[in-house]
Amino acid sequence: MVRRIKLTIAYLGTPYHGWQRQPAQRTIQGEIEDAVAAVTGGLGVAVTGAGRTDAGVHARGQVAHLDLPDSFPPEALPRALNARLPETIRIMAAVPAPPRFHARFSARGKRYAYRVGWGPVPLPWRALRTARMPEPADRDALERCLQALVGRHDMASFSVPDPAQGPTVKTIFAARASWGRTTLQVDFFGSGFLRYQVRRMAGALLEVGAGERSAADFMRLIEIPTPGAPLPTAPARGLTLERVFYRLPPLAAMSRASS
Amino acid sequence: MVRRIKLTIAYLGTPYHGWQRQPAQRTIQGEIEDAVAAVTGGLGVAVTGAGRTDAGVHARGQVAHLDLPDSFPPEALPRALNARLPETIRIMAAVPAPPRFHARFSARGKRYAYRVGWGPVPLPWRALRTARMPEPADRDALERCLQALVGRHDMASFSVPDPAQGPTVKTIFAARASWGRTTLQVDFFGSGFLRYQVRRMAGALLEVGAGERSAADFMRLIEIPTPGAPLPTAPARGLTLERVFYRLPPLAAMSRASS
Repeated sequence: MVRRIKLTIAYLGTPYHGWQRQPAQRTIQGEIEDAVAAVTGGLGVAVTGAGRTDAGVHARGQVAHLDLPDSFPPEALPRALNARLPETIRIMAAVPAPPRFHARFSARGKRYAYRVGWGPVPLPWRALRTARMPEPADRDALERCLQALVGRHDMASFSVPDPAQGPTVKTIFAARASWGRTTLQVDFFGSGFLRYQVRRMAGALLEVGAGERSAADFMRLIEIPTPGAPLPTAPARGLTLERVFYRLPPLAAMSRASS
Repeated sequence: MVRRIKLTIAYLGTPYHGWQRQPAQRTIQGEIEDAVAAVTGGLGVAVTGAGRTDAGVHARGQVAHLDLPDSFPPEALPRALNARLPETIRIMAAVPAPPRFHARFSARGKRYAYRVGWGPVPLPWRALRTARMPEPADRDALERCLQALVGRHDMASFSVPDPAQGPTVKTIFAARASWGRTTLQVDFFGSGFLRYQVRRMAGALLEVGAGERSAADFMRLIEIPTPGAPLPTAPARGLTLERVFYRLPPLAAMSRASS
């Protein structure tokens, strides 16, 4: 008998060419599928992720599913897989899931965090997950534009033209900026996100913060959906997939900033 | 004219064979000396560190000095060197120093932090600077032994036999354990430390916390100095050289736990 298993996965994206398996490139999916093959004595099992994070993007709570013969108890998987995986990828948990559970199609929401730092020189271990930017001068404008993203909108302006993309209307349930002395973390909690959407939202917000884009211009990006609108894509290293939701929590969950 | 320059350096020790330059190994000193040579058009300048951290040990505030012709302004050095250094090594600051300043011999104190974590699986970015251990069951005994280290003692038991070692009497000004839900950070602020001393103190303290060594036995390590006493050396990844002091601060500085 086969059993579906739900994995929760954390990774430091720095050394990888993103989630999705590619020939002759180190990817997170590739490393995990190879580890599963080693642990199962060569079963070629697919590991399906909730989302395909891009090269250099990190995850604290990526979710994936796979099917294994029920001779492999899920509770033994984290230790067995972690022993074979590079230290930059960790299986945080493995639990049995209903046969109809699908990491991607069952997902109801995701939370991403985008981290920015300024100040003279970043500490090396912070730099791994933080984009360097000048300090945002106009915090009010940045926060106003951030809150304008909340709700149900056509987000095409924050993606790039892609015929295979599907519907571009998405809901952002909540968004929040948490300011430190030399850091800013922006959390986006939404129904789902288009490719590059979070990094392009972050890029546009940081332009507003820097005074390089007016708040009115930012609002037009939402009001007039324009695929491939001229926007900077904020660097991958600042982005972390924090969590995938299969049941939507009270919005209060957003107020717990993570680090 | 030549000018002495004081560098403050942070590094993630994971990929390096320690501070000290070695043939055919990547070391922090080697990488910095190579970057200085590149920046100065080939001057073979020595970079002298306050302490030789071992392979895998990190630093938030290592200090080093070097001498450069005064045509190289110190304030330009961080940017120039950081552009050539790997991202895991950052020059945090460069300032002019008196000609008699010596990073090692002028140092009056150092603060090291040893970080431990337990719980199911560590997040990959925390794992880089945290040793995995079972949760210490006897926190009181661990804290009692930690405080017994404070003061002036012959620390030979916490080092290994080494004829070139010099005096083994050292002063620990203050020590402190900071407990998180699944983490422990132990800070040691002292006049100076013998080779492996911090990792062997941490190893012995964690044995006491685990109930594998009695507090009385720990106290005997202090009372009866025994070079090479049978002690575990806690893993390098948990150790960070937090700061080097050239003037001793009020002990209150210890109460600011860093992370």
